[in-house]
Amino acid sequence: MEKLLLGVDVGTSSVKAVLFRSSGAVLAESAQAVPILTPESGFAEQDMNSVWETVCLAISQCLSRAGVTGGEIAAVGVSGQGTGCWLIDRSGKPVGNAIIWIDGRTKGLLDTWKKEGKASEVFRLSSNSLFTGSPATLLAWLKENRPEVFTRARYLLFAKDWIKFRLTGEISTDLSDLFMFPLPLRGGVESILEVLGIPEAGEFLPTIRKAWEIAGTVTREAAETTGLQPGTPVVAGLVDVASCALALGIIRPGQVYSILGTTSFNAFLTEEKDPLLFEPQEVGISVAYLFPGSFLRSMATMSGTLSLDWFLEHFFGEDRSQYLSRREFFTFLEEKISEVPPGSEGVMFLPYISPGGERAPFLNPHAQGVFFGLRYHHTKFHLLRAVYEGVTFSILDCFRALSLSFPELRFCGGGAKSDFWCQLVADMLNSRVVVPKNQELGALGVAMLAGVGVGMYRDVYDAVEKVFGIKKVFEPREELSRFYRERFAVYRKLREFLQELWILNDRTTCLRGEG
Amino acid sequence: MEKLLLGVDVGTSSVKAVLFRSSGAVLAESAQAVPILTPESGFAEQDMNSVWETVCLAISQCLSRAGVTGGEIAAVGVSGQGTGCWLIDRSGKPVGNAIIWIDGRTKGLLDTWKKEGKASEVFRLSSNSLFTGSPATLLAWLKENRPEVFTRARYLLFAKDWIKFRLTGEISTDLSDLFMFPLPLRGGVESILEVLGIPEAGEFLPTIRKAWEIAGTVTREAAETTGLQPGTPVVAGLVDVASCALALGIIRPGQVYSILGTTSFNAFLTEEKDPLLFEPQEVGISVAYLFPGSFLRSMATMSGTLSLDWFLEHFFGEDRSQYLSRREFFTFLEEKISEVPPGSEGVMFLPYISPGGERAPFLNPHAQGVFFGLRYHHTKFHLLRAVYEGVTFSILDCFRALSLSFPELRFCGGGAKSDFWCQLVADMLNSRVVVPKNQELGALGVAMLAGVGVGMYRDVYDAVEKVFGIKKVFEPREELSRFYRERFAVYRKLREFLQELWILNDRTTCLRGEG
Repeated sequence: MEKLLLGVDVGTSSVKAVLFRSSGAVLAESAQAVPILTPESGFAEQDMNSVWETVCLAISQCLSRAGVTGGEIAAVGVSGQGTGCWLIDRSGKPVGNAIIWIDGRTKGLLDTWKKEGKASEVFRLSSNSLFTGSPATLLAWLKENRPEVFTRARYLLFAKDWIKFRLTGEISTDLSDLFMFPLPLRGGVESILEVLGIPEAGEFLPTIRKAWEIAGTVTREAAETTGLQPGTPVVAGLVDVASCALALGIIRPGQVYSILGTTSFNAFLTEEKDPLLFEPQEVGISVAYLFPGSFLRSMATMSGTLSLDWFLEHFFGEDRSQYLSRREFFTFLEEKISEVPPGSEGVMFLPYISPGGERAPFLNPHAQGVFFGLRYHHTKFHLLRAVYEGVTFSILDCFRALSLSFPELRFCGGGAKSDFWCQLVADMLNSRVVVPKNQELGALGVAMLAGVGVGMYRDVYDAVEKVFGIKKVFEPREELSRFYRERFAVYRKLREFLQELWILNDRTTCLRGEG
Repeated sequence: MEKLLLGVDVGTSSVKAVLFRSSGAVLAESAQAVPILTPESGFAEQDMNSVWETVCLAISQCLSRAGVTGGEIAAVGVSGQGTGCWLIDRSGKPVGNAIIWIDGRTKGLLDTWKKEGKASEVFRLSSNSLFTGSPATLLAWLKENRPEVFTRARYLLFAKDWIKFRLTGEISTDLSDLFMFPLPLRGGVESILEVLGIPEAGEFLPTIRKAWEIAGTVTREAAETTGLQPGTPVVAGLVDVASCALALGIIRPGQVYSILGTTSFNAFLTEEKDPLLFEPQEVGISVAYLFPGSFLRSMATMSGTLSLDWFLEHFFGEDRSQYLSRREFFTFLEEKISEVPPGSEGVMFLPYISPGGERAPFLNPHAQGVFFGLRYHHTKFHLLRAVYEGVTFSILDCFRALSLSFPELRFCGGGAKSDFWCQLVADMLNSRVVVPKNQELGALGVAMLAGVGVGMYRDVYDAVEKVFGIKKVFEPREELSRFYRERFAVYRKLREFLQELWILNDRTTCLRGEG
């Protein structure tokens, strides 16, 4: 009997459990929604125990859908949303809700750090820019504003580590999550924590393991709630964006990829010695990857399909209700916006609608979304096309900041399901867009690592060889590339002009009680 | 038997005929839609004969609704949309469609005139800034681009004059329409026409009559199609914004009023000797009024309720369909936006969606609408409230430009039907808002003049005394006034920052064929 691999992806709005064959083919999957809690405006939290229970549900549902028992699973890999702050106490209990990466409460603190030059110094040490949802930023905020929570904390985990801990009873993490903490590229962790005034947080860091290293085995208790077999190996895994890189076959320096999910993640694989790792200064992040000294130099925006979801929810409710399936609905929408000329007849959308503002390719926690260029003859389909275009401009903006031009982009995430969007990316980036045949890449990458961990694959190169395949290729169209380059100049100027106004707008948003 | 007065208002999207008693009470009315033709993108035209036929229909329907015969009507006044270009040939036939005031075809010409300083010179001569739909701008465009049309023209009429001509066979106009031509405040008309390179257009101007002067009587032919009695006197009338001023009782220098219709018109009554007539320089218009040397110094924006209509049409279709009446629909909407805090939680709308851009309190034919400050938690009701607020900020912007502060604003137009909007205007302008009990003010003002013309009223003061009354007064709320003042600073900066970007955006809107 062929042994199977289980990948778990602890996403922001849902958790997924996916069973893969060794070929990478999906045997079964289960996705379960996870609510985001907003106890105060600008806050974004998740109940850690609920997340664990939802993962259990997803795993057991996945097994039952596949009609397999836990014994058929060779190993488990866990991936998940990065950064944020998942703190547990000495006894392994959460000290409160997880504060997740989109949280915006630390805006004021970040403003101060920017002014004081601390943000710059941290970037120079780590090639990671701080943003509102960075673990270090959140820890400093907690120390000052919730000292009772801060002092109870014993370990700082990340989403995948919390689930691995509940599966195995073992506390560990891996470098991909930890470098976004951020950890300095050279020199001890203390340097950054000193700069930020949280030296004691150094004690919070768990053991670091290689991504394919077995970090523990499924406990009897976890086996009962998940349906897995006790003793099943669980590997250390990777943060979701790095897991996707592996599933996309990103294994050679210089390879470039984008994940267009709720946010967009735009990166290329490089090495510690590459001076580009620190260019442009003070923006983007560098995620440690599988190989010694290898990094995914990245620009991770705050809003990818988030902007589309928001716009559709509020402005296309009645259209959606006419369609039974999501697929039919999107076919309708994309037919309509194909009738709107490229450039949306002057409507330009800036997709900075996240409560945390924007962090790449510029850092402004006050950044806000904008519809620009509105005219009386525009319909909602002009605005909708502008949302697609604006999100894609934000991806182009990221790669421009990295000074990259490249013949090929590997592309995945929800946005890659849309042929319209794939072609738009190809045209705007003036690059071939390759969409993989593989599915559920966040879960697949760590499942591949699980396979490496138990010897089903010789190494990660072998895993990529056996698993990765191409579904579709989109070629850029020269005339459109030139046109979008002109439009991009408007996009760029607009977001540069508005930086100060966003701050001013945030300052005067609320009617103050004190009158 | 009490004699009645008929007022006709030739609006942009509809024409109205309204029968008034001498008290100003409405006896009957008829409104008929008039289509706006857009033979090319950015053009806005109306078929002059169709407009006349629609007026005939409105008058006859109004008479039949009232159950009166033409013989019961003492006199007729005609008002209508200002500026634009309603040209007739020697035989009295239109030389083509009327080009109406919202037309945007002359953008390029205006840009050139601005650069060459011609626009400034015209303002210094006339206290009227040129905009895309100014008669002089359109004539210069026609001379260059449609010379065959320009040479066939014999008279330049305005909407009301065209209708008066069809009613009476007499060609004339009045000063209120003519000063927006523009006519110089001091010195001969030739000066401006020389500056603009259209000296021959001086020949196009018809005889000028006082607003209450009888300009002719209804012909037998017009009587047949309208149901009026042949020989009924028709007075010269006023352009719609001046007709409204009279109906609002604006008869003393310093009185201030706003008409919030499709556009907003914001003005105060002053005299030729007032140096403020030329401040601020190069923006706004000055409309000659009823008294010797009296002017309505005005800032007329391009988009008032136009923005609201646009937003509701495209984004609230499904909500509207649930309500039988417009009133119920707006009650629902305004309840919902009352739940959104003042300031729309940071959403800011710039209402410059007209194809002609904006002309007051700044001139930029490339200006465009903007939603700024968008965040994921905003619903469409945040954006809707922002539309109400943005349009009202544009009114405040106009009065700030006029350096006016005042204890009382008289307020009319579609927007004044909404208590929510009246209170918003009071709070933002920090001024008492007075809403009249009278209805259909555009038609009422010229009906009052018709009454003066035939001696039903002693003079315009007597007419105001007998007709004008107050329905409702809205007092400003101090705390909100202060808050909106802060928000206005954001509005102001935003529209200042974007001036150049609007031009750039317009230049790169279209994918060019030559690629």
